[in-house]
Amino acid sequence: VSRFDRVPVEQAIAWIDGAARCLESEEVELHQASGRVLGADVVAPAPIPPVDCAAIDGLAVHAADSLGAGAYNPLTLPATAVMAGEALPDAMDAVVPFDLADLDDAGRVILVEPVTRGINVDRLGSVAIAGALLAAAGTRLAPRHLGLIAAAGIARVPLVRRPRVRLAIDSAGRPAESANRIRPMLCAAIERDGGVILESPLAEALAAVDADIVLVVDGAGPGRDQASASASAAASTLDIYGVALVPGEATGFGHTAAGAPMLLLPGPPTACLWSYELFSVRAIRRLGGRNPALPYRIRTMPTARKIVSSIGTTEICPVRLRPDGEVEPVASFAEIGLMAAAQADGFVVVPATSEGYPRGAPVTAHLYDES
Amino acid sequence: VSRFDRVPVEQAIAWIDGAARCLESEEVELHQASGRVLGADVVAPAPIPPVDCAAIDGLAVHAADSLGAGAYNPLTLPATAVMAGEALPDAMDAVVPFDLADLDDAGRVILVEPVTRGINVDRLGSVAIAGALLAAAGTRLAPRHLGLIAAAGIARVPLVRRPRVRLAIDSAGRPAESANRIRPMLCAAIERDGGVILESPLAEALAAVDADIVLVVDGAGPGRDQASASASAAASTLDIYGVALVPGEATGFGHTAAGAPMLLLPGPPTACLWSYELFSVRAIRRLGGRNPALPYRIRTMPTARKIVSSIGTTEICPVRLRPDGEVEPVASFAEIGLMAAAQADGFVVVPATSEGYPRGAPVTAHLYDES
Repeated sequence: VSRFDRVPVEQAIAWIDGAARCLESEEVELHQASGRVLGADVVAPAPIPPVDCAAIDGLAVHAADSLGAGAYNPLTLPATAVMAGEALPDAMDAVVPFDLADLDDAGRVILVEPVTRGINVDRLGSVAIAGALLAAAGTRLAPRHLGLIAAAGIARVPLVRRPRVRLAIDSAGRPAESANRIRPMLCAAIERDGGVILESPLAEALAAVDADIVLVVDGAGPGRDQASASASAAASTLDIYGVALVPGEATGFGHTAAGAPMLLLPGPPTACLWSYELFSVRAIRRLGGRNPALPYRIRTMPTARKIVSSIGTTEICPVRLRPDGEVEPVASFAEIGLMAAAQADGFVVVPATSEGYPRGAPVTAHLYDES
Repeated sequence: VSRFDRVPVEQAIAWIDGAARCLESEEVELHQASGRVLGADVVAPAPIPPVDCAAIDGLAVHAADSLGAGAYNPLTLPATAVMAGEALPDAMDAVVPFDLADLDDAGRVILVEPVTRGINVDRLGSVAIAGALLAAAGTRLAPRHLGLIAAAGIARVPLVRRPRVRLAIDSAGRPAESANRIRPMLCAAIERDGGVILESPLAEALAAVDADIVLVVDGAGPGRDQASASASAAASTLDIYGVALVPGEATGFGHTAAGAPMLLLPGPPTACLWSYELFSVRAIRRLGGRNPALPYRIRTMPTARKIVSSIGTTEICPVRLRPDGEVEPVASFAEIGLMAAAQADGFVVVPATSEGYPRGAPVTAHLYDES
């Protein structure tokens, strides 16, 4: 394919789902695992805790020794200061908080009430038994998961490898200035989606054997096959070129000679942004084992103004959230492009089957949530 | 203060809001600005685009020359190939897409219909006039903001400095193993909240003049002032020690001798996690100019089971989302601590004024959204 087409967005997405599959796992130190995705279940190798431990900082005692203690019958017991998480010394089976205990000069504890066996003790296996599932394959590791895994004494975890994204921006004679205007946006998005960026000239990107995916900012649009699209096609197979998406129609889908999935992105920044959001996001997140959906929360709200769209084309409509709980289109895209995207609180994807929405109709918005 | 107290959570939060204020700004290259917070408004230094530019890849022509062109009167015009974003050559004022134009051997374009002046042209200033606000102070920079700022030709932006967080984990004789179990969780959380981690022994952390905030994992709980809390207090002022929060009551608030705000966090991992989430999050995010609220989305849903809580104590209750749209407490905290946190989809903060909620009552959940 080097002819320009306008395939439905759904067809392009199906292409991605066929071409981009979850990468293999690698073992990574726990302290570098934050935000990454587990490639396999993590189970407790031993009970947590592995022995009876103090649940709080305090004085470990043998509870039975306190039997009969009372205000009129203070008992003096051997005690050992322990810190939370520390194993209880032999024969000790309860922990008295420091503020409830008096110590004599010999470091023994004076109790005026009996202590219950097991109080303030984390019993062997009380958090998890050996073999218990701590975090399932596919979990994106947050601080709380790391806390639990570390508590199991596990130092390394199997993580889905981060996708290596070969990026060719200044291809096909596009001026360097134009590349400079797209680079910060695209690199930030790739990093947000978990990719490792390797920038190279076009020919090198297409020949790279280390790429999990190749992004070429190159989609020249209808009719311009002499330079960009054909230069790519020469070193690759282009299955789809052109999607019924506005902005972003000049998006292409294929494979490099080295067999990596390759996406052509449009050169104009606004079209590049939305092409990335609709397609590259999904490809990179699938490779990295992440949820392939758009990384924004979804909410259905009435639209404060009419949204007009063309049948047969999927259209992106940036919207603002209003205090009254309605969404309002920022402006016509044709007018202000990136300004509309930057000023929006989110966007509505109007499907190809829709002519748009009348004022007051419920629309499904993808909301940015970056504060 | 070195006595243990149980001040209301609200009082501790008010302390943080007084102690942690937004840091100053620094100039940063655009390609390192993703996810960071603008310290000042960014305005367009010149109109965007600065001259009339091609909106698409195509052939630039002088529209008036095409007047009278038709299927029976094809006109041959001088034309220049341009790429999207490129300045139009002198006298050119419209762009014809490649697929609508035929070229003769001399590289002139043959038109069979007239071209409208300004078509496929991004006019000078059409995205923004000089001085227009591109992104406001306080904006957390996402790809779309970077795209717009780069389009303005701006290479460096004023960003709120990332807070330097001095972290002392293995203080006060706590065993190294215990520190190792807390470190991955705490470091991941600090990085998530935009902090730069500088780990040091306690004495060094308390004396550090480069710290924007000091976190000491040290809160030993009631009665234990001889080692940890007092060691801190000796080198610092402790305004609050102990909060009516479960888990997490052994949290302290003060200043180091060098004047930096200092938080004592409980040593047991579960208490440490929730103390961090309720208090340290807010302090670090305020310093960094970010939204100080918990970084989770909020939703009000009925609870599928009774939630029991004590009057006078703010309690954290981890919950799971059920397919029927209700939330369900994972388990009693006392039982499984970190396991409950790791398996939850979010949590409910039960205020000190509440005894909990009956089954079916609406509760406000903070939902993790990490996929």
